[in-house]
Amino acid sequence: MRATVMHGAGDVRVETVPDARLIEPTDALLRITRACICGSDLWPYKKMEPSKTGQRMGHEFIGVVEAVGKDVRTVKRGDLVVAPFAWSDGTCEFCKEGLQTSCLHGGFWGGTKLDGGQGEAVRVPQADGTLVVLPVGPDDALMPGLLTLSDVMGTGHHAARAAKVAPGKTAAVVGDGAVGLCGVIAARRLGAERIIMLGRHPDRIALAKDFGATDIVSERGEAAIEKVRELTKGVGAHSVLECVGLDESMRTALSITRPGGAVGRVGVPQDESIPAGDDSFFKNVTISGGPAPVRAYIEELMPDVMEGRIEPGRVFDRVTNLDGVPTDIVR
Amino acid sequence: MRATVMHGAGDVRVETVPDARLIEPTDALLRITRACICGSDLWPYKKMEPSKTGQRMGHEFIGVVEAVGKDVRTVKRGDLVVAPFAWSDGTCEFCKEGLQTSCLHGGFWGGTKLDGGQGEAVRVPQADGTLVVLPVGPDDALMPGLLTLSDVMGTGHHAARAAKVAPGKTAAVVGDGAVGLCGVIAARRLGAERIIMLGRHPDRIALAKDFGATDIVSERGEAAIEKVRELTKGVGAHSVLECVGLDESMRTALSITRPGGAVGRVGVPQDESIPAGDDSFFKNVTISGGPAPVRAYIEELMPDVMEGRIEPGRVFDRVTNLDGVPTDIVR
Repeated sequence: MRATVMHGAGDVRVETVPDARLIEPTDALLRITRACICGSDLWPYKKMEPSKTGQRMGHEFIGVVEAVGKDVRTVKRGDLVVAPFAWSDGTCEFCKEGLQTSCLHGGFWGGTKLDGGQGEAVRVPQADGTLVVLPVGPDDALMPGLLTLSDVMGTGHHAARAAKVAPGKTAAVVGDGAVGLCGVIAARRLGAERIIMLGRHPDRIALAKDFGATDIVSERGEAAIEKVRELTKGVGAHSVLECVGLDESMRTALSITRPGGAVGRVGVPQDESIPAGDDSFFKNVTISGGPAPVRAYIEELMPDVMEGRIEPGRVFDRVTNLDGVPTDIVR
Repeated sequence: MRATVMHGAGDVRVETVPDARLIEPTDALLRITRACICGSDLWPYKKMEPSKTGQRMGHEFIGVVEAVGKDVRTVKRGDLVVAPFAWSDGTCEFCKEGLQTSCLHGGFWGGTKLDGGQGEAVRVPQADGTLVVLPVGPDDALMPGLLTLSDVMGTGHHAARAAKVAPGKTAAVVGDGAVGLCGVIAARRLGAERIIMLGRHPDRIALAKDFGATDIVSERGEAAIEKVRELTKGVGAHSVLECVGLDESMRTALSITRPGGAVGRVGVPQDESIPAGDDSFFKNVTISGGPAPVRAYIEELMPDVMEGRIEPGRVFDRVTNLDGVPTDIVR
């Protein structure tokens, strides 16, 4: 079958790889109908060391079940299903607590040992714990929105939950990428009264406003911090969603958080420490978050997508096919 | 009047200073009956740059009200009162939320402008918001326990709350100083099923066991981390109380936290960043805490002290008078 393989920074190829197939009795075999490129794919795309074997790409996908192992109970041949960006057994202590990204028998797609979603088919380990059946056909107009349940919408929701967004509170979102935009949707959905978006891309800012952002801060660094303070009577936002993962974005997030407030971080950290000494300590700021257990959120968020109350599918700004991935990953 | 003044590392003197007196109508004047030395006093004691003016010391004290300003309503001459380590108005938005350490009109004792508790008397700003009347006389046997409500017991409680200690959970306490020991009391009081104390001072370890520690880890660094993992089926503790403030102690705390767990930090950070990159992020560990709003906890904790259910006064290991402070601060 054909699939994308990243061989180094800027080097993505579509290659013929071994056909995906059932191995364990808990596996399902999916034919991919939709997949997408993630902001986190951009880190290796920018700095991956050249590799002879390369790594399989794609961790966000929807597909049709072609076959299941003999122990699989919750999905069957012909079902259209969505997969979260981490697979999980659904039964271990962490899965039961809703932290499927720490599943004792789970893992992440792609790399050198598992199939990735950017290919014709995928072997899905722990199919019962991992997959969720979609109540529509593969060409439904809601496909983009449902595809976001595999990662970005659940990740934005996780940032908002980790940042303790609640009715009447002020939220701020650092980063206007797909996750930040989904963070705006999530903050509004959870009842934030005011949503401040920090970003500077005109098209994304427009979308953020559509999604419910009440204030836009396009300054950077100290000027951005100052602006948010002005907007919040000098004290900062209750809930700050850190949707980037860089040292500077975390520093900004902590600086604009109100005493007693919380930062929900979902951007994969590109540094080994958090610039959070005196200031965040003396303000009693909570830092929470990590890889979103999106599997835990699919059932909660899907009705809102199905009924059009949220439109996270609008964060996608380009559609291509498998052959287009190498050239279309970055415009 | 006489009071202690720190002039530099290792240089504490008892000096004659201007008499404490009422200035604002919201002030109270206290004659100090008990005060103590804090672990946080040890940081300047170890590394304060020499200073000509010096800084007044002491932020944990009990005293008798000698006079009050005309706007003071809740305390009167003759009352025995305890003061938290931060003074606060009790009415601003942060005080109402129980975060009195971020009071918009509050502050901290001592330094160069305010009296400290290690002296004969103290001017207390915002007396109504700050002081809590004690229901006993100044020589009551419970004085040591009640004095801990000014800082260490409330701080241990804050660490436990920030670390989300709850019935049935496993807690770990990093640091066997007075705050760590109070953290053990707090963790037990909040229902932790298992309490792992990381420390190596025999007398404090014995006290920790009396207070409810179920396991003692006396190893350090990687060996300590390994030991806690062994004790927790390889996954770590739900709640970790970081009661030191050093880079290494924070690193240990984060390493022994279970995925989805929380670190409550109350040790004043001696470094500018948190060593919390990939590991804490991928585990979805929450980092919370800061200076404890002990004022918020006094009413909750005092009945337990009064009725002997907790004995935090046992953390004090030496009693001296004002003249003894310069020589007795460190044994």
